[in-house]
Amino acid sequence: MKKLINKPEDVVRESLEGMQAAHGDIIKVFYEPHYIVRADAPVQGKVGVVSGGGSGHEPMHGGFVGKGMLDAACPGDVFTSPTPDQMEAATKAVDGGKGVLHLVKNYTGDVMNFEMAAELCQAEGIDVEAVVIEDDVAVKDSLYTTGRRGVGLTVLAEKIIGAAAERGDDLKKVADLARACQANGRSMGMALTSCTVPSAGKPTFELGADEIEVGIGIHGEPGRERMKMKSAKEIVGIMSEAVISDLPFKSGDETIVMINGMGGTPLIELYLLYNEFVKVAQGKGIKVARRLVGNYITSLEMEGFSITLLKADPDMLKLWDAPVHTAGLRWGV
Amino acid sequence: MKKLINKPEDVVRESLEGMQAAHGDIIKVFYEPHYIVRADAPVQGKVGVVSGGGSGHEPMHGGFVGKGMLDAACPGDVFTSPTPDQMEAATKAVDGGKGVLHLVKNYTGDVMNFEMAAELCQAEGIDVEAVVIEDDVAVKDSLYTTGRRGVGLTVLAEKIIGAAAERGDDLKKVADLARACQANGRSMGMALTSCTVPSAGKPTFELGADEIEVGIGIHGEPGRERMKMKSAKEIVGIMSEAVISDLPFKSGDETIVMINGMGGTPLIELYLLYNEFVKVAQGKGIKVARRLVGNYITSLEMEGFSITLLKADPDMLKLWDAPVHTAGLRWGV
Repeated sequence: MKKLINKPEDVVRESLEGMQAAHGDIIKVFYEPHYIVRADAPVQGKVGVVSGGGSGHEPMHGGFVGKGMLDAACPGDVFTSPTPDQMEAATKAVDGGKGVLHLVKNYTGDVMNFEMAAELCQAEGIDVEAVVIEDDVAVKDSLYTTGRRGVGLTVLAEKIIGAAAERGDDLKKVADLARACQANGRSMGMALTSCTVPSAGKPTFELGADEIEVGIGIHGEPGRERMKMKSAKEIVGIMSEAVISDLPFKSGDETIVMINGMGGTPLIELYLLYNEFVKVAQGKGIKVARRLVGNYITSLEMEGFSITLLKADPDMLKLWDAPVHTAGLRWGV
Repeated sequence: MKKLINKPEDVVRESLEGMQAAHGDIIKVFYEPHYIVRADAPVQGKVGVVSGGGSGHEPMHGGFVGKGMLDAACPGDVFTSPTPDQMEAATKAVDGGKGVLHLVKNYTGDVMNFEMAAELCQAEGIDVEAVVIEDDVAVKDSLYTTGRRGVGLTVLAEKIIGAAAERGDDLKKVADLARACQANGRSMGMALTSCTVPSAGKPTFELGADEIEVGIGIHGEPGRERMKMKSAKEIVGIMSEAVISDLPFKSGDETIVMINGMGGTPLIELYLLYNEFVKVAQGKGIKVARRLVGNYITSLEMEGFSITLLKADPDMLKLWDAPVHTAGLRWGV
């Protein structure tokens, strides 16, 4: 294993120290338990938005903490659920008196621990609601998940509900909006290569020199099908069809699209993939109203990408366009 | 070779089509010859700033075209110099009557072709100045270069001189500022793995399972030393020392720092590396006034990183902070 780290057990902490050093104007990092809050937290009179999950998916979630997006993120060990004490501390730190929303990716450990943290916080008088994101159409159940995995839609939902909280929406409205994102968003990923978890020291899985795995999870969980290498056009065709037919997205729908790199995919390829996706969307009359092309929810150095599609109403688009100031996503400020 | 492409010969064009589809509000792409200009080009009464070079380093340069940074970029084939006709067309397209600056990375082909394009444009009455960036301290001469290679400093220089042109500085002032960036900036890179140029179909070089190459070029050109894998702290120590001692950067200097991923390096590692760099800088009394941590000048899917350090005066810092609206770098707007 070659990695730009010191000791595997120190990766998360030392990376957080780097984030703090780089973005002290945006975030404040706490350690033991680890959590990241926006620098001006708690914002009085505003709903707090908290997410979290295993590390190794950067910039998600810590890179999305800041004005207009998350109030706090709880980073677990690499590909490992954060613990309830992280979530509890983060929730208390961002409670501005209007309640806190937990946005949870659907992995059994994440869901269970966020539930436990919510109970602890509610017992102390903080109003907490949780919404679970489960957008991966690839498989029904998976290695760490009952039901669908939570993947790329989380990024889009964090932006939209973060903006809603920022404009003053109350907890019920913010939670309803998160549920609307979940109801209208779908994703699917694929990989050319595995990644290596630092503490494991060897690749999570093996893929042949001419093989790809379509429907892969962000921790390398098995996908739908292992197949021979195909062209970008064919791969985008297969994945788009799976995503579009699932909701289904229809002609005339306005969408926010994310072509997301898994961490080791060159940007030149991501734009080429986006180009293929646009052709598919045009062919079906689906309008791409907004888009992200880049690395937003990664799997360490895995080569591959995912497609996320969210059917967005005018309010979602307005919230998407609202100013955001985080390490990983920034505009309007 | 597994790559998310269609045909190797179509990669650059299809990726440009994706950029156009994604960022039509910021850029306009022309084909045959290929070049990218900001959507509102030419801006009358403003110095135009043009850069370019081989593709495969995205987001550089096309991702830095837009308000407050480049007026145009000329993408060559992957790791191949663009041709004079691209540069000539781009220069004419962004000429707003106040002259055009060519910012050129020091590779023999790039320098020669930009010189030829400048002559053609000057013959048609456009005032053109060229400044060559040669910031890589690793080796004296290299595979495609006489003298030092132009690498990460190009990103910082494009931001700073782009902002100067935007505020209305004349061509001489913009060129002087580019020369000041060159005089005060230094870089060095390293790699854990090679990358594969699509048309070559196999890795550019080979590195053993426990080997790294320190001082690598952005096209995989040989570095200073191939060595056994080391800790992040040791690697940052070696590279920082080479960069800092070269200018030399001194206690009390205010700097802009870039910890740049080569394309296949996880962000969690880049922040960890930044953390190590900050400790080195603090130990030497060098102040990190601004920073970028991420993928800005890449080498396709190469795993590795580079360090760039620019000694910045107050005007450079002010220009750094000025609004920028490009696909790859955005703030204040």
